[in-house]
Amino acid sequence: MIIIFKDSARPEQIQKLCADFEAQGLQIHNSEGEHTHLIGLVGDTGDVDINYVRAQQFVADVKRVSEPYKKANLKFHPEPTVVETAGRKIGGGHFAVMAGPCSVECEAQIIEVARDVQQSGAAFLRGGAFKPRTSPYSFQGMRAEGLELLREARSATGLPIVTEIMNTEHIPLFEDVDVIQVGARNMQNFELLKELGHLDKPILLKRGLANTLEEFLMSAEYIMAGGNEKVILCERGIRTFETSMRNTLDISAVPMLKSKTHLPVVIDPSHAAGIAWMVEPLALAAIAAGADGLMIEVHNDPPHAKSDGAQSLTPAQFDALMARVRSTAAFFGKSM
Amino acid sequence: MIIIFKDSARPEQIQKLCADFEAQGLQIHNSEGEHTHLIGLVGDTGDVDINYVRAQQFVADVKRVSEPYKKANLKFHPEPTVVETAGRKIGGGHFAVMAGPCSVECEAQIIEVARDVQQSGAAFLRGGAFKPRTSPYSFQGMRAEGLELLREARSATGLPIVTEIMNTEHIPLFEDVDVIQVGARNMQNFELLKELGHLDKPILLKRGLANTLEEFLMSAEYIMAGGNEKVILCERGIRTFETSMRNTLDISAVPMLKSKTHLPVVIDPSHAAGIAWMVEPLALAAIAAGADGLMIEVHNDPPHAKSDGAQSLTPAQFDALMARVRSTAAFFGKSM
Amino acid sequence: MIIIFKDSARPEQIQKLCADFEAQGLQIHNSEGEHTHLIGLVGDTGDVDINYVRAQQFVADVKRVSEPYKKANLKFHPEPTVVETAGRKIGGGHFAVMAGPCSVECEAQIIEVARDVQQSGAAFLRGGAFKPRTSPYSFQGMRAEGLELLREARSATGLPIVTEIMNTEHIPLFEDVDVIQVGARNMQNFELLKELGHLDKPILLKRGLANTLEEFLMSAEYIMAGGNEKVILCERGIRTFETSMRNTLDISAVPMLKSKTHLPVVIDPSHAAGIAWMVEPLALAAIAAGADGLMIEVHNDPPHAKSDGAQSLTPAQFDALMARVRSTAAFFGKSM
Amino acid sequence: MIIIFKDSARPEQIQKLCADFEAQGLQIHNSEGEHTHLIGLVGDTGDVDINYVRAQQFVADVKRVSEPYKKANLKFHPEPTVVETAGRKIGGGHFAVMAGPCSVECEAQIIEVARDVQQSGAAFLRGGAFKPRTSPYSFQGMRAEGLELLREARSATGLPIVTEIMNTEHIPLFEDVDVIQVGARNMQNFELLKELGHLDKPILLKRGLANTLEEFLMSAEYIMAGGNEKVILCERGIRTFETSMRNTLDISAVPMLKSKTHLPVVIDPSHAAGIAWMVEPLALAAIAAGADGLMIEVHNDPPHAKSDGAQSLTPAQFDALMARVRSTAAFFGKSM
Repeated sequence: MIIIFKDSARPEQIQKLCADFEAQGLQIHNSEGEHTHLIGLVGDTGDVDINYVRAQQFVADVKRVSEPYKKANLKFHPEPTVVETAGRKIGGGHFAVMAGPCSVECEAQIIEVARDVQQSGAAFLRGGAFKPRTSPYSFQGMRAEGLELLREARSATGLPIVTEIMNTEHIPLFEDVDVIQVGARNMQNFELLKELGHLDKPILLKRGLANTLEEFLMSAEYIMAGGNEKVILCERGIRTFETSMRNTLDISAVPMLKSKTHLPVVIDPSHAAGIAWMVEPLALAAIAAGADGLMIEVHNDPPHAKSDGAQSLTPAQFDALMARVRSTAAFFGKSM
Repeated sequence: MIIIFKDSARPEQIQKLCADFEAQGLQIHNSEGEHTHLIGLVGDTGDVDINYVRAQQFVADVKRVSEPYKKANLKFHPEPTVVETAGRKIGGGHFAVMAGPCSVECEAQIIEVARDVQQSGAAFLRGGAFKPRTSPYSFQGMRAEGLELLREARSATGLPIVTEIMNTEHIPLFEDVDVIQVGARNMQNFELLKELGHLDKPILLKRGLANTLEEFLMSAEYIMAGGNEKVILCERGIRTFETSMRNTLDISAVPMLKSKTHLPVVIDPSHAAGIAWMVEPLALAAIAAGADGLMIEVHNDPPHAKSDGAQSLTPAQFDALMARVRSTAAFFGKSM
Repeated sequence: MIIIFKDSARPEQIQKLCADFEAQGLQIHNSEGEHTHLIGLVGDTGDVDINYVRAQQFVADVKRVSEPYKKANLKFHPEPTVVETAGRKIGGGHFAVMAGPCSVECEAQIIEVARDVQQSGAAFLRGGAFKPRTSPYSFQGMRAEGLELLREARSATGLPIVTEIMNTEHIPLFEDVDVIQVGARNMQNFELLKELGHLDKPILLKRGLANTLEEFLMSAEYIMAGGNEKVILCERGIRTFETSMRNTLDISAVPMLKSKTHLPVVIDPSHAAGIAWMVEPLALAAIAAGADGLMIEVHNDPPHAKSDGAQSLTPAQFDALMARVRSTAAFFGKSM
Repeated sequence: MIIIFKDSARPEQIQKLCADFEAQGLQIHNSEGEHTHLIGLVGDTGDVDINYVRAQQFVADVKRVSEPYKKANLKFHPEPTVVETAGRKIGGGHFAVMAGPCSVECEAQIIEVARDVQQSGAAFLRGGAFKPRTSPYSFQGMRAEGLELLREARSATGLPIVTEIMNTEHIPLFEDVDVIQVGARNMQNFELLKELGHLDKPILLKRGLANTLEEFLMSAEYIMAGGNEKVILCERGIRTFETSMRNTLDISAVPMLKSKTHLPVVIDPSHAAGIAWMVEPLALAAIAAGADGLMIEVHNDPPHAKSDGAQSLTPAQFDALMARVRSTAAFFGKSM
């Protein structure tokens, strides 16, 4: 951590601050110039509150030199993490596709879609039981009943299931879920993240609509700090000024995250643009950029989907997509 | 709702869709031109899923004409809502200041600050017991104990208390809190909003960092749809490309919200910029723009605050600010 | 164009407006419901000023149904445009790479880099003679002398040259340039665009940092409206809240632009992230998403480049990249 | 400037870099810790290209400590600049309003509006002769003829005139203009800024839609570096994700700019929201935040304005606004 002092800082103010740091076991490196006086703090600065320092009236600026995340940091864990569940692997060269409807709507629907996506080569069945909707008047999901139907679809197909949690109180209901998803709107629901950190189960963490990659990794760190290191990161589009698409896919997040963390990174091209015909080019771009997997919405009858119909593929469209995904993943050296 | 068809739409496709709408009790107004065929849906379109329509392959675009919020809508409730609690009023010409530390840190601190802000003219004591922090390694708040200390500060001063909730499981702990705050990161924690809708207690709802005003009003609608119409809206800065301040205060949100809703609107200038010396100009601008109140961070010792010290005023600075706030509010015709 | 009236609109106001439109040769389709009264305008609404209509006090909203661009519109020109110059083609299945230094610095440098990128398979030499720099104290380019050196490099290698123009007064200097580039900061320098519309020469138009795709196409339309239809669109990253990269590459712009226009679309991965090691994954993603070409910065000595050294590849790195670009373009069915 | 090295940096690499800096007359302060090795550069680092340093493969990060602008910097010019022309002053406690139509449309219109705004207390007449329009098919302004009509309006009223320039070639036409405006889209048209730096005439520089305050000040620096220090900064709304208004007024820019520069800062509430009824609350907020002036669009017949009718006030509305502006400016201690 580097601390830059104002020209008006008095020597005794700086000395007192430095004494505080030394009492915390930190070393001070002093650098004093004609116009600039700064110090570097050396040692474990994880406990230093950057706001504490910034609030000192004689401090001009504070800059953190090391990343604030530890368990998620590639520096301290140079091997890529492979998340494995029910025999499926993601990360470290293993590529997987998670597919299914936005919402679980009824038994027939989820079982039909599950069979379809399995035959096309999906490794996981996704489906929403608890649905975060902007409007209180929209369909809110089948909730506990939806989880039951997902388990039935798993029995019918063998596909492990991925589904979203919205509240710590629902954790017991998710005991038998294979991968728990944290949605974009809950990326900084820290109470939820802390509780998920106590589970021994993969967590698919979606990036918030306006969260930086550092904040994204800090939310992963919340889960990992509790002991659960099976975190899968999912980029699903960020909010920008552009209006022709629902969100802007941040494709650069794939290589940038991979330069910072060992965790697997998947892309959700369905939510990124919110438009079914854009799923294919974005999915292929994700593979080319180095993603470890895809999450794709598939519905047996998109025009009648209870949510997100505009971005859902039909099973036939998904089947055609998977042919291209398989050859593209192979071209880029991934195994599926 | 207006639905615009593609040039390639076949008459029988349009007829089938129209028949579906008529079966839902909606009226169809047809408008067919050389290059454009569209229909207007008349009636209660609140139940029509705009995604259902958009996902039809023969539909080019769908535009909503009426606002999706009802209880929060000024159209159906033209009188401004005055939220009243413990004898303090916000809205409809009543201006109130909520002040106190970011975090409750100990008994001495919260009682000292409470007394100070009361003497300076604050109407409410704010203070965080449950703290959403970006890092799992930062101070997470005193939690239940912090709530207890807030109640003590209330006993000592008579100031009603405002404090943040992060989880539905904590609701019982907040029974005796005067105003429950929902933070920016939880603005779309819909499970939490739904539960707060069943309380009979004012909710201070903060706008999310990247949420539109329509989404903000839809989150208020979640609370109101459950029966709790005592919602106070709080703008606290949005996330933009600008880097010299933590967030960008959206001052225009004040008049724009007031043109759309009857709910009171307060501004948090402390979080907006994240810089103590900017609180005064932003607070005065908020009053000039028509805000109904302010939420301001005050700490007895900002450099040693456990959170947000960089943006906290000292009690003396707050006292000076309040003198300007009082005269400015009076100038703009508000009563305090 | 659809015009939605306020509830308070008086019949005679609406009649007068409609009479105005009919006098302009437009047809009116009326649609009147219980809560919503709207009209659709049919005919060539290109001349109707949407602000004129919006400013009427009895108008609630106006929505454009058709795109405001004509010559750039895929609807009226369904075949992809192939821009051809000096025997090199871009668009319609033809893929081309433009490479070279950010700035032309001296004869030896530009000729060395030109030879290197030619041997690696670049189709065009890029290089800046006039440089837009944020600071007046930074290197501003070699200007006219730089153009002369680019011509020498073209003589030495046969590579056509692409270079940026910043001012209408410089147009005579660019007579012998093969492709004129308009930089992101000048995307809405309309006086410049108009003049370029009178040339018979390909224009590479870069998207502004915060311009929507519709605005981007309108800037292309400015050039095309003057008669010059040889426009190449270049996405080079947009400005968002993310801080770990200089800009955010909007990869979705590729398929979205291709759904709206017949013009070729190239990607500049060097400027998008501003980081040399990210060029490769972003370049491959661009090909996978359907781009028609790439613009890449290459410098013989990046650490000593006078501008943009941080994002420049060495000739050896570029050579390795081109091997991957060639095989990837072939995999995705493009010819180079 | 602080340079942080990678763990993998070799001593001889660092030594060589330091030798280069010392050869430029800079002093090096070395700070070496267990996990962090950094140096601070002391002296005039204005000539050091931060990209040069960042591109070194053994450099982890570079941070600038001092601002890159000098002439615009408050540090080196602690007294506020008062821009004076034709007896009107802006800055240093002097508040001025610039008003008039978006576009000059005809003699009768501009003279009528000029007389109206003069009577209401405007200090300057604004009006566009050269108009930057998104569409090539929209009205492009009366150009040279519009400038002539502005001069007539000045003769008729005595009001100095403010009007926008779009191209260096037009500078001779602006010789007799009192204040030359640079529009948001040209804020980084550096060739134009350089030429304006050679004039002895106030320049009203508008902030670009997606430019940071530092970039804004660097554009002012371009003008000042040429010798023209009469720059007025104008904030007119930035581009964000919010869709209910055209732009988001960055009110915090007023105090933030005033903490960094001595130049006057005015606000354009008409363009900020693009909505006539929002002009008043935003204008009052601007005064409260400390602005030195306002730029406001007034049209004798907004519904028939050739541009920006939706945001123009009628002369009667402007007259009512000015009454509030005068009393508010007085309340906040400004003289008009």
